[in-house]
Amino acid sequence: MQNQYTPAKVWTVDDKDAGEWAKINRPISGATHEKILPVGQHGLQLYSLGTPNGQKVTIMLEELLAAGHQDAEYDAHLINIGEGDQFSSGFVAVNPNSKIPALVDRSADTPIEVFESGSILLYLAEKFGLLLPEATEKRVKVMNWLFWLQGAAPYLGGGFGHFYAYAPEKLEYPINRFTMETKRQLDLLDKQLAENHYIAGETYSIADIAIWPWYGNLVLGNLYEAKTFLDVDSYPHVQRWAKKILERPAVQRGKIVNRTWGEPWEQLPERHNMADITNVLSLKPKF
Amino acid sequence: MQNQYTPAKVWTVDDKDAGEWAKINRPISGATHEKILPVGQHGLQLYSLGTPNGQKVTIMLEELLAAGHQDAEYDAHLINIGEGDQFSSGFVAVNPNSKIPALVDRSADTPIEVFESGSILLYLAEKFGLLLPEATEKRVKVMNWLFWLQGAAPYLGGGFGHFYAYAPEKLEYPINRFTMETKRQLDLLDKQLAENHYIAGETYSIADIAIWPWYGNLVLGNLYEAKTFLDVDSYPHVQRWAKKILERPAVQRGKIVNRTWGEPWEQLPERHNMADITNVLSLKPKF
Repeated sequence: MQNQYTPAKVWTVDDKDAGEWAKINRPISGATHEKILPVGQHGLQLYSLGTPNGQKVTIMLEELLAAGHQDAEYDAHLINIGEGDQFSSGFVAVNPNSKIPALVDRSADTPIEVFESGSILLYLAEKFGLLLPEATEKRVKVMNWLFWLQGAAPYLGGGFGHFYAYAPEKLEYPINRFTMETKRQLDLLDKQLAENHYIAGETYSIADIAIWPWYGNLVLGNLYEAKTFLDVDSYPHVQRWAKKILERPAVQRGKIVNRTWGEPWEQLPERHNMADITNVLSLKPKF
Repeated sequence: MQNQYTPAKVWTVDDKDAGEWAKINRPISGATHEKILPVGQHGLQLYSLGTPNGQKVTIMLEELLAAGHQDAEYDAHLINIGEGDQFSSGFVAVNPNSKIPALVDRSADTPIEVFESGSILLYLAEKFGLLLPEATEKRVKVMNWLFWLQGAAPYLGGGFGHFYAYAPEKLEYPINRFTMETKRQLDLLDKQLAENHYIAGETYSIADIAIWPWYGNLVLGNLYEAKTFLDVDSYPHVQRWAKKILERPAVQRGKIVNRTWGEPWEQLPERHNMADITNVLSLKPKF
């Protein structure tokens, strides 16, 4: 035993514990300041940030638009979590959990407030009748994998990513624990994708849209600079799938929305119409 | 910095890393041995263990039976995760992720295989038309909180519970990190339940059934011996809700199914009919 730490009888907060994220990690919930949310012209109002959980929803919305659903037009407003925007009274009223993304559908008589990226994907798939099969057996497969992602990604993001990339000190046991689980998840996806073109079978679905921003970005080397550490090239079927999905124009559009880092052609803090995206993508060098 | 640990360039498995759970934590997925799953007489075949994720489904099934849905009769088979039952070829064929619970619905022409507790709750709610409102606004609220649980519980179980109760050494930083998040979650639920009788409004739903086995058991002192450490009495609305749900006969029945620990009247490894449960519950002292 290297550590002789004994937890207190009753835990109390110590601001130093939160590390780099002290401003956004708290032991209580609720608003910290009064501020209303902006509302644009479209029926769908998204409040988000271009992290993997945010990308799920913007990719979904771009897929809906690409399929011809003009009433999937949306305003994407930036929620800067480093600045605490998720603790405004307006955001907390929509999502008391203070996590991005949150969606308000103002096309109905009563605005519908949707939070949790998985819930938003399901809501949009059912509203527009796209990317979620109706036949029970196929639908269940998609829902199994959609729920799998929601329970798996915390081990990748809140576990592996945090302890490998963000925690103030490198701790061997947590890094090993969450690396082992992340590699198990990658191996699971690799076996599933060895036998299926897409995650839940032969058809692209909201399961792919949920899983790609986390595990697709991971094997493409876009998360945590962990490409070598995780030996992501040893998952060829995940690689094949990740690249194939990245070829989709809607994915290339959706993944830059509400993003404030990366190359100039990868950043679009706010999105209000299609031209906002094409203008930014046009900055990409052609060579 | 107490620790001078530097991760390897490429991670490789070391059996000592898995601690007490070395037999069930692996960096790969898939079956370890050939074994078919047992099949009982009912349409619904559940393969599970009475952990919180397992309790969600057995409580749901008991609620369906209590509401008069005789075709919700089920066989609950034990998957002993300490013995590696989740790695049998039969279990992996139903749930390649090797986690309990998994459900096979044999009442249809083609057996429907459902995994992830959230997906199973949604499947049963839709199949029987119970505990998930049809009206969009109410349905969305339930789905928001159902998805919330699936993403939140890994921080409680795989985070707080693991580092506070199970990890081979007590590590201060991970315990603080996951305790802070667990208390934030409890505070969030407390505020939600201060304004609503149930999690998603005035009606009991699959959101309550998903959340109670984790956060209800936690505030009632049934998880991780953490009642004092987390000061669970400081969440009075969660306490009120947890006790109210525990009063439901279906909850008292469902929570003992596939359970192999606790008092004699809390243990029912396998369940094939209602009498199996009432026989065990009758062992409870009446005083």
